[in-house]
Amino acid sequence: QSSVTVFGVLDATVSSYSNKSETPLGLSVTTSSTVQNSSGYAGSRLGFRGTEDLGGGIAAGFWLEAGLANDTGGGFAPGGVIAFNRRSTVSLSGTLGEIRVGRDYTPTFWNDAVFDPFTSNGVGINLIATASGFNTPGQAANGFQANPAYVRASNSVGYFLPPNLGGFYGQVMYAFNEAIKYEPGVTTPNVANSQRAGRYVGGRFGYAKGGLDIALAAARSTIGDQFAQGTTTSLDIWNLGASYDFGVAKLMAEYSHNKLRIDSSAAPVSTAPPGANGALVGIHVPVGPGLIRAVYTQVKYNNVAALAQVVPGLSRDPKSEKFALGYVHNLSARTALYATAARINNKNGADLTVGGPSFYTKPVNGSTPVPQSSTGYDIGIRHLF
Amino acid sequence: QSSVTVFGVLDATVSSYSNKSETPLGLSVTTSSTVQNSSGYAGSRLGFRGTEDLGGGIAAGFWLEAGLANDTGGGFAPGGVIAFNRRSTVSLSGTLGEIRVGRDYTPTFWNDAVFDPFTSNGVGINLIATASGFNTPGQAANGFQANPAYVRASNSVGYFLPPNLGGFYGQVMYAFNEAIKYEPGVTTPNVANSQRAGRYVGGRFGYAKGGLDIALAAARSTIGDQFAQGTTTSLDIWNLGASYDFGVAKLMAEYSHNKLRIDSSAAPVSTAPPGANGALVGIHVPVGPGLIRAVYTQVKYNNVAALAQVVPGLSRDPKSEKFALGYVHNLSARTALYATAARINNKNGADLTVGGPSFYTKPVNGSTPVPQSSTGYDIGIRHLF
Amino acid sequence: QSSVTVFGVLDATVSSYSNKSETPLGLSVTTSSTVQNSSGYAGSRLGFRGTEDLGGGIAAGFWLEAGLANDTGGGFAPGGVIAFNRRSTVSLSGTLGEIRVGRDYTPTFWNDAVFDPFTSNGVGINLIATASGFNTPGQAANGFQANPAYVRASNSVGYFLPPNLGGFYGQVMYAFNEAIKYEPGVTTPNVANSQRAGRYVGGRFGYAKGGLDIALAAARSTIGDQFAQGTTTSLDIWNLGASYDFGVAKLMAEYSHNKLRIDSSAAPVSTAPPGANGALVGIHVPVGPGLIRAVYTQVKYNNVAALAQVVPGLSRDPKSEKFALGYVHNLSARTALYATAARINNKNGADLTVGGPSFYTKPVNGSTPVPQSSTGYDIGIRHLF
Repeated sequence: QSSVTVFGVLDATVSSYSNKSETPLGLSVTTSSTVQNSSGYAGSRLGFRGTEDLGGGIAAGFWLEAGLANDTGGGFAPGGVIAFNRRSTVSLSGTLGEIRVGRDYTPTFWNDAVFDPFTSNGVGINLIATASGFNTPGQAANGFQANPAYVRASNSVGYFLPPNLGGFYGQVMYAFNEAIKYEPGVTTPNVANSQRAGRYVGGRFGYAKGGLDIALAAARSTIGDQFAQGTTTSLDIWNLGASYDFGVAKLMAEYSHNKLRIDSSAAPVSTAPPGANGALVGIHVPVGPGLIRAVYTQVKYNNVAALAQVVPGLSRDPKSEKFALGYVHNLSARTALYATAARINNKNGADLTVGGPSFYTKPVNGSTPVPQSSTGYDIGIRHLF
Repeated sequence: QSSVTVFGVLDATVSSYSNKSETPLGLSVTTSSTVQNSSGYAGSRLGFRGTEDLGGGIAAGFWLEAGLANDTGGGFAPGGVIAFNRRSTVSLSGTLGEIRVGRDYTPTFWNDAVFDPFTSNGVGINLIATASGFNTPGQAANGFQANPAYVRASNSVGYFLPPNLGGFYGQVMYAFNEAIKYEPGVTTPNVANSQRAGRYVGGRFGYAKGGLDIALAAARSTIGDQFAQGTTTSLDIWNLGASYDFGVAKLMAEYSHNKLRIDSSAAPVSTAPPGANGALVGIHVPVGPGLIRAVYTQVKYNNVAALAQVVPGLSRDPKSEKFALGYVHNLSARTALYATAARINNKNGADLTVGGPSFYTKPVNGSTPVPQSSTGYDIGIRHLF
Repeated sequence: QSSVTVFGVLDATVSSYSNKSETPLGLSVTTSSTVQNSSGYAGSRLGFRGTEDLGGGIAAGFWLEAGLANDTGGGFAPGGVIAFNRRSTVSLSGTLGEIRVGRDYTPTFWNDAVFDPFTSNGVGINLIATASGFNTPGQAANGFQANPAYVRASNSVGYFLPPNLGGFYGQVMYAFNEAIKYEPGVTTPNVANSQRAGRYVGGRFGYAKGGLDIALAAARSTIGDQFAQGTTTSLDIWNLGASYDFGVAKLMAEYSHNKLRIDSSAAPVSTAPPGANGALVGIHVPVGPGLIRAVYTQVKYNNVAALAQVVPGLSRDPKSEKFALGYVHNLSARTALYATAARINNKNGADLTVGGPSFYTKPVNGSTPVPQSSTGYDIGIRHLF
């Protein structure tokens, strides 16, 4: 009678990270760790899903998917708790497309994963994702300028185009911030800040035919607000990704543009809002039962005071570059061994890492070390079920 | 080999709430929110259950059922955590009935759900449940006068009559508070208060035959104690519900009586303990593949100082009335679309809402607004699996 | 298509505990409680597991197993949260053995469970496990001298001998503490203490043939470190267990040795490190569909200042003795009823209990009670699925 599929991924690695910072006088300090980690190739998860044929081309479906930190048995919700935080949706789909309600991936994240040779996992993850705070201890926990909806959004309603549009595909998403409104507003209640955070409006449209896949996505994600100052801060994102599969190799590339936007009910706040632009070019080369993966990716920040850019606009912009190389050996369609190595070079205050401990930035002999290089590797096994 | 059924409900809504309070001078303040929520028609859940035939008419069974906040992927245990907090039981059943051990629904809650046209979910939920603190931000988190065992009790042992009694059915439940006893008590240790909370003794008996279903339930639920004062506070509940299915329509009604009881080892504490009485009358009208649902429900408080009843016994009693109307459109036995609208009128300090933000009760121009009306709607989809 | 087995155990008991302490003048205080509890015979759990045949004698497998507090619907991770904290592993196995990565049982715990007639559960649990802090409110939460890896270790890599070695079996485990290393160390950063805790190195080797099963295990588990003092504290464990099944009865015995080890980069710290030695002898006697279980077990502490041993080496050593007797009645291979009774006698400051509240040790009439006896019973049902 059960209409449920239990599915998942367990991905376990042994990983090592080494992150070097250096004082202007050339004194370097390296922080490093060797760990048993999860999700080096694919995000570990446990899920429950199913669909019901309602007749007339209509179907209902549900999808519950929990992230797993299988190194400890915990999860990735706050507090290390297991929750269906990867996806938790109910759907109604038909010839006109699909309506999906709940917690789901944001349209703007898809390009950062689909066109990344390392699908936004492990030490090879692209720097757009890293700078957006995904999986990187050196960064703000919730993404570039603390975007809470970088990867996924709760309280969302999404619409997906149907699959039979001659290669065209697309989706839009709206996520509620569920803020409390007061009417009349003149009563100026003592409202807590950032009630408006969590709102997300975005979409993604693409075309996939033959070897080609190309997609453009854009969104505005509300990050916070200050009731007293009358400001609302959003992150505007757009990105363009593409891949072409030549058979012997698949090329991939993406460009991502991120800029803060501060709406004010009073005087304009700033003419130089912080931003970050990222890019990647990568390749997949199948080799028998294996797959070689490589990526060059970079990110450049603008007007980011937080990254020690003392005089935004005059100081040189912080910038990170990364190269990663990996090999996946498929033992079956479900089970693979993999190894990845990666190196980041940070400049002008950028502090991205491939993982592991933060850069050491406390003063040494009265001089403060500046983040430089980060290197690391994953060796692991990924098992689908 | 697996003897497990995986089952569940995903119910997602878009809901809006608007709650108006007003100063004696007629200045009104409205708090409102529009949200993507869960469980507007049926409580979202994921469960695992199974039974084993032991021969001789005896069977063993288990039931694990977790509440899901599928708008975020979390759950409903404290901290938004997922737990088998809806039900977590092991059973042994036979011709003499069933013994069930663990966390389960209380006998007294059943009438509040079974005889409610909206089965105690969404904006249409009856006011007995709302006043008992279920699902209502405007109220004490754990029920009328903080009853921790309003809906369910942990650490319980229950007994159920067998199903073949000519229409008669029944159950009793005892839940342990697991309090520490000290002997001799004269050592008067510095015991924390409310160790006795969690104890529940109750039962429910009914008769269902033909179109008729009628049931009476009663319980004493221990809410807290103060060791130094020697008092133990309980909530005494009894309720009577009935429904009759005429085919073209099903009528439902319930009356619920709730009164605090303060046992004291010293002088009697109070002759006017707080109480609340609630009632509902409702109807289900099947319309093709759909179902119209409507309810009128009210609750009246007695001697409830917390609800600004300045001189209990002299001030008029706080009172809430609600009317809700809804339509369910079944796409299949498992999937339904639904819409519900509801309105509450509060009087004399009662502050119940259909959901959403609390009433605004901070002073405006030196005058404090008093809760008045609450309105809201749910539009959603419910999918069983 | 699903390759997942859902499995588990629900074990529910009604249990009672009574713990008596006494002042030197003979004034006794008893703390007691009666509760509805879980896991009196076998640890309640919900799991997901599967294996995939990769050909050539190689198989991949995964195992996710969460502990369940089915009396409340919660779990046993910190905060009462449900997590796959019993086991969370991915494996690759073949003719050369199995490599297993993730969170798993430690080799040294196996003997404490396998050779215990009560398999380390309920009031009959052996005192080695109790003194190691497992399941005992009177003790440090994480085991003897707070060993975080007494039962299981996170972030581990394990190797198991293949099963076809003529009765010989064995396993080794290494668990990473994932501590941050600083290079050069001379920068002496302000490192938080106990970063090295969680490291575990251990193994277990045994022989099982005919009625005989015997196994030796040993490990070093890092418990903490103090960066400023340059000390690292570990717990060294070794234990030897054996059982022989005569058919009419199965005899079991185990000896366990535990000693703290403090490595210091400066002068040696102590010549009398704390330790604890434990033992058990037990029996299983099958009786029709039932099983009688009995155990005598004891533990003796050395140099344990925490247990009020005022002058370690001069005061007599704290010591606990326990006798437990139980009966299991199998209704089927999956479902059983059981009852167990147990009593502990504590001497010289030892404070082990069979469960329930801590001993009362606040002064009574100016005199402090010392822990004496602890008694308790479990009556319950265990259901496998």
